[in-house]
Amino acid sequence: MANTLRKSAKFAFSGVLSRVSIHNGHGRVSVSPCFSLQQRNNSTKAKVKVDLDSSTGVAVLGMESSPVNSLSLDFLTEFCISLEKLEMDKSCRGVIITSTLPKVFSAGLDIMEMYGKSPERCGEFWKAVQEMWLKVYGSDMVTIAAINGSSPAGGCLMALACDYRIMADNPRYSIGLNETQLGIVAPFWFKDTMINTVGNRTAEVALQLGLLYSAPDALKIGLVDQLVPQDQVLTAAQENMAKWLAIPDPARQITKSMMRKQTIDRLLSNREADITNFVSFITKESIQRSLRMYLEMLKGRKA
Amino acid sequence: MANTLRKSAKFAFSGVLSRVSIHNGHGRVSVSPCFSLQQRNNSTKAKVKVDLDSSTGVAVLGMESSPVNSLSLDFLTEFCISLEKLEMDKSCRGVIITSTLPKVFSAGLDIMEMYGKSPERCGEFWKAVQEMWLKVYGSDMVTIAAINGSSPAGGCLMALACDYRIMADNPRYSIGLNETQLGIVAPFWFKDTMINTVGNRTAEVALQLGLLYSAPDALKIGLVDQLVPQDQVLTAAQENMAKWLAIPDPARQITKSMMRKQTIDRLLSNREADITNFVSFITKESIQRSLRMYLEMLKGRKA
Amino acid sequence: MANTLRKSAKFAFSGVLSRVSIHNGHGRVSVSPCFSLQQRNNSTKAKVKVDLDSSTGVAVLGMESSPVNSLSLDFLTEFCISLEKLEMDKSCRGVIITSTLPKVFSAGLDIMEMYGKSPERCGEFWKAVQEMWLKVYGSDMVTIAAINGSSPAGGCLMALACDYRIMADNPRYSIGLNETQLGIVAPFWFKDTMINTVGNRTAEVALQLGLLYSAPDALKIGLVDQLVPQDQVLTAAQENMAKWLAIPDPARQITKSMMRKQTIDRLLSNREADITNFVSFITKESIQRSLRMYLEMLKGRKA
Repeated sequence: MANTLRKSAKFAFSGVLSRVSIHNGHGRVSVSPCFSLQQRNNSTKAKVKVDLDSSTGVAVLGMESSPVNSLSLDFLTEFCISLEKLEMDKSCRGVIITSTLPKVFSAGLDIMEMYGKSPERCGEFWKAVQEMWLKVYGSDMVTIAAINGSSPAGGCLMALACDYRIMADNPRYSIGLNETQLGIVAPFWFKDTMINTVGNRTAEVALQLGLLYSAPDALKIGLVDQLVPQDQVLTAAQENMAKWLAIPDPARQITKSMMRKQTIDRLLSNREADITNFVSFITKESIQRSLRMYLEMLKGRKA
Repeated sequence: MANTLRKSAKFAFSGVLSRVSIHNGHGRVSVSPCFSLQQRNNSTKAKVKVDLDSSTGVAVLGMESSPVNSLSLDFLTEFCISLEKLEMDKSCRGVIITSTLPKVFSAGLDIMEMYGKSPERCGEFWKAVQEMWLKVYGSDMVTIAAINGSSPAGGCLMALACDYRIMADNPRYSIGLNETQLGIVAPFWFKDTMINTVGNRTAEVALQLGLLYSAPDALKIGLVDQLVPQDQVLTAAQENMAKWLAIPDPARQITKSMMRKQTIDRLLSNREADITNFVSFITKESIQRSLRMYLEMLKGRKA
Repeated sequence: MANTLRKSAKFAFSGVLSRVSIHNGHGRVSVSPCFSLQQRNNSTKAKVKVDLDSSTGVAVLGMESSPVNSLSLDFLTEFCISLEKLEMDKSCRGVIITSTLPKVFSAGLDIMEMYGKSPERCGEFWKAVQEMWLKVYGSDMVTIAAINGSSPAGGCLMALACDYRIMADNPRYSIGLNETQLGIVAPFWFKDTMINTVGNRTAEVALQLGLLYSAPDALKIGLVDQLVPQDQVLTAAQENMAKWLAIPDPARQITKSMMRKQTIDRLLSNREADITNFVSFITKESIQRSLRMYLEMLKGRKA
C-alpha cells in the first residue's frame, strides 16, 4: 500500500467536510456522529453515577454526562476512577455500564478535546481514552454493557470492551465503529477488539465502510449478544449478570485474562507510539480545519 | 488483570465446593461432571478396543473404560499406544474415535489421578493428557469423533482434536469445556483448540461461563459438525470418512499440518511449564481439600 | 505430523493420477479443474481489457484470455501491469475485476507453465502468481470481484484478494480452493487469505477436502458476499462500489492496510523460500509425470 499517502494526501479531509456538510443538509449526520459536541455548562456536576448493591455484589455505573455522554477528558477521568474504585472493592464482583440519558449510550470522543488544544493536552486526552479501554477490557469484574441508546465510535468501543452486550431493540439506535465515515481511522486496538468480537472478515468490511448497525443487524453479526425491549435492558443485564457470578471468580478471571491478555499487551507495549501517532495526526493544520468546520456544522444544527 | 489473584485468592475453591454441593442436592451435577470417578476393579481389562478394516483402511477406536471413559493415566496410556500403532500402520488411513459405553463419549479427566497423588505422579498424568491431545490433533490420519454420548471437559477436548465431529441428536447429551463451573481453568491449548473451532468470541463466552451445549446448540456454534440419530452415529462417521479418504493423503496431511502446526508448536515449546503449572495448582492444599469433598459427593451419589 | 512424508511419499502423486483418470472416465473432472489448459494460438491478443470511467473513477478490468482465463505467465504479467497502471492513475479509485468469457471467472493456474519448464521459468511463473495476489490484496483502490462464472483454485484466490465479492446466482458455477483434490497443496498465503475470509474452522475443512462451493453455499460460509442474477453482476458491482467510494480514500486505505498488512508481510518475508518450495515441488519427476498424464487427459477431453 505504498501509494496510499502520495495518492490521497491532497484530498485527505476536504472530502470529509463536504460529506459532513451534505449529510447535515439531509439531517443525517445526527444519527452517526463520530465526535460529539458536549455542553460546557455543567463541568462540576458528576458525570458518572455509581450504585453498588452490596447484597448482590453488582454495581450499576450510569453515564450521565448530558447531553450525549461524550468522552471528554473530564468524563473519562471520572469514569476510570469510578471503575478503579469498584475494582478495588472486594464486595463488588460485577458492573453494569449504562446511560442515564435518553436515546444515547455514548456518542464517542468529544471533539472539543481535539480542537485547538496543545499537543500535550491532546496526548493527555488520548491516554485517557486508552485507559478507559484498558480498564474495561482488562477488568477482573464481570462487565455488562446495557446499551440503551445509540453507541457510535468510542461509545461502541466501550461496549465492545465489556464481557457481554445487551441492547435496546429500538430500530432508531445504531452501534458501530464509524470512524472512516468522517475520514479518520480507528486505531489498531479498536480494530483488535472488533476482530475479537465479530471475526476478521466482518471487521474488515465494517471498519473500512465505517458501518453503523441497527440493533437487529448488530445482533446478527455478533456485535451485541442480546436484544430486549427498551425498558427491560437493565433487568436483562441483572439477570445475565447472575449467570456470570455463578462461576467462581478466580477461574473466570484467569480464563478472561487468557483470552484478552495478548490484545491488551499489544497496546501496553505500543502505548507511547499510539499517543504520538494520534497527537501528530490530530494537530495537523488540515485536520484542525476539518474539525472547525465540523464543529460549526454541529453548532449550526443546534441553533 | 493485576487484581485477580489478590482479590480472589481467599475464596478460590470454597465457592466451588459449595456450588457442587448445591448441584448435588438438586441432582444436577450428574449432567456436568468435569472430573469423573472411575471404578477401580477392572484395571487389567483393556480400556480401548481397536477394529481396523484393512479393506477400507479405517479403524474404529472404541473407548470402553467403564463406566464413563474417564481419562485416567492407564486409559490415556493405552489410548495413545493404540493410536500410535495405527499411525505407524501404513494400511490405516483414518480412525473413528467413539465410545462403546451407553450415554457417554468421555466424562473427562479422572479425579482419582489428581487426588492424594505425589507431584511426580500428577506430572506424569498431565503429560499423558498433553500426549493424547498432541497425538489426536496432529495425527496424519483422518480423525472423526463419533460422539454417541455426553462429552464434557477433557472428553470435549478429545473430540475437538479430531478432524470432524458427528454427534448423536439426543437432547440429554451435552458437550463443552465446562472447567470454570468447577472452579478450575482450561489450559491455553484447550483454549486454542476451542478458538480454532468456534472462533474467538464464542470461545470467550463458552470458556468463561464453562458452558455445556446440548447437541443442537453445539451444532449451531460449530462445536460439532453434524447431528444424526443415535443409532446412525457410526454409519455416518464411516460415510463421512469416505469423503476425506477420497483426497490424496499427502496433500491432505500437509494442509492439515499447515492449519494446526502453530497451535501444536505452542504446546510443544511450553510443555514443561504447562506441567509444572498444573502440578503446582493441583497439589495445593486448598485444591486437594476441594477434590476430597467433590469426591465424597460423587461417592455419596453412587451410594 | 512427523509421519507425513515417510508414510505418504511413495504414493504421493500416483493417487492423484488414478483419481483424475477415474474422474475423467466419469466426466467429472470438468467441473473442478485446478490447473487449466490454455489454447496457445492467441498469444499476441490482449488478455485483459481495461475500461476506466473517469467520471466515476471506477475501472472495469475484464479478463478475456480465451477459453478459461488460465493464469499463465503472459496473462499474469499483463494483469499486473494493467492493475499497476490503474494504481498509479490518480483518477482511478476503484476497480471491478470480472471475466468477459462465458461460464468462467478464471480457471486458475495454467498447467502449461508448470509442465516441462526449466526451474528458472517455473520460478518466474510462481513469482508472477505471488505478484498478482500482492497487487490485488494490497491495492489502495477498492477492488470488487464480479464473479460471473466458475472460479476454482487460483481463480478463487484472485477473488478472495478483492475487498468484496459478488457472484452470479447460477447453480452450475462453483468457487473454492480445490488444490488437494488434485493432490497438490495451496501455499500458506492462499490459506491465510482463506482464513481471513471464512474463519479458521471453515478454512480447515475447505482446504483439507479441497471443497468447491456452489454459489449459494459460498454465500452461506462467507466465501462470497452477495449473489445476484447472472446479468446483474456488473451492475451490482457498480452499485456496491459507490458505497465504498463514499468513504474518504485515506481513511479507507489506512484501515485496509491495518487489516491486511500482517498477512502481506508474511509472504513478503518468505517470498524467495516460497518460490524455491514451489519450484522444487513442481519440477519433481513424479509431479511432472502426473502433470503429463493430467494434460493428456485434458487434451483427450477436448478431442
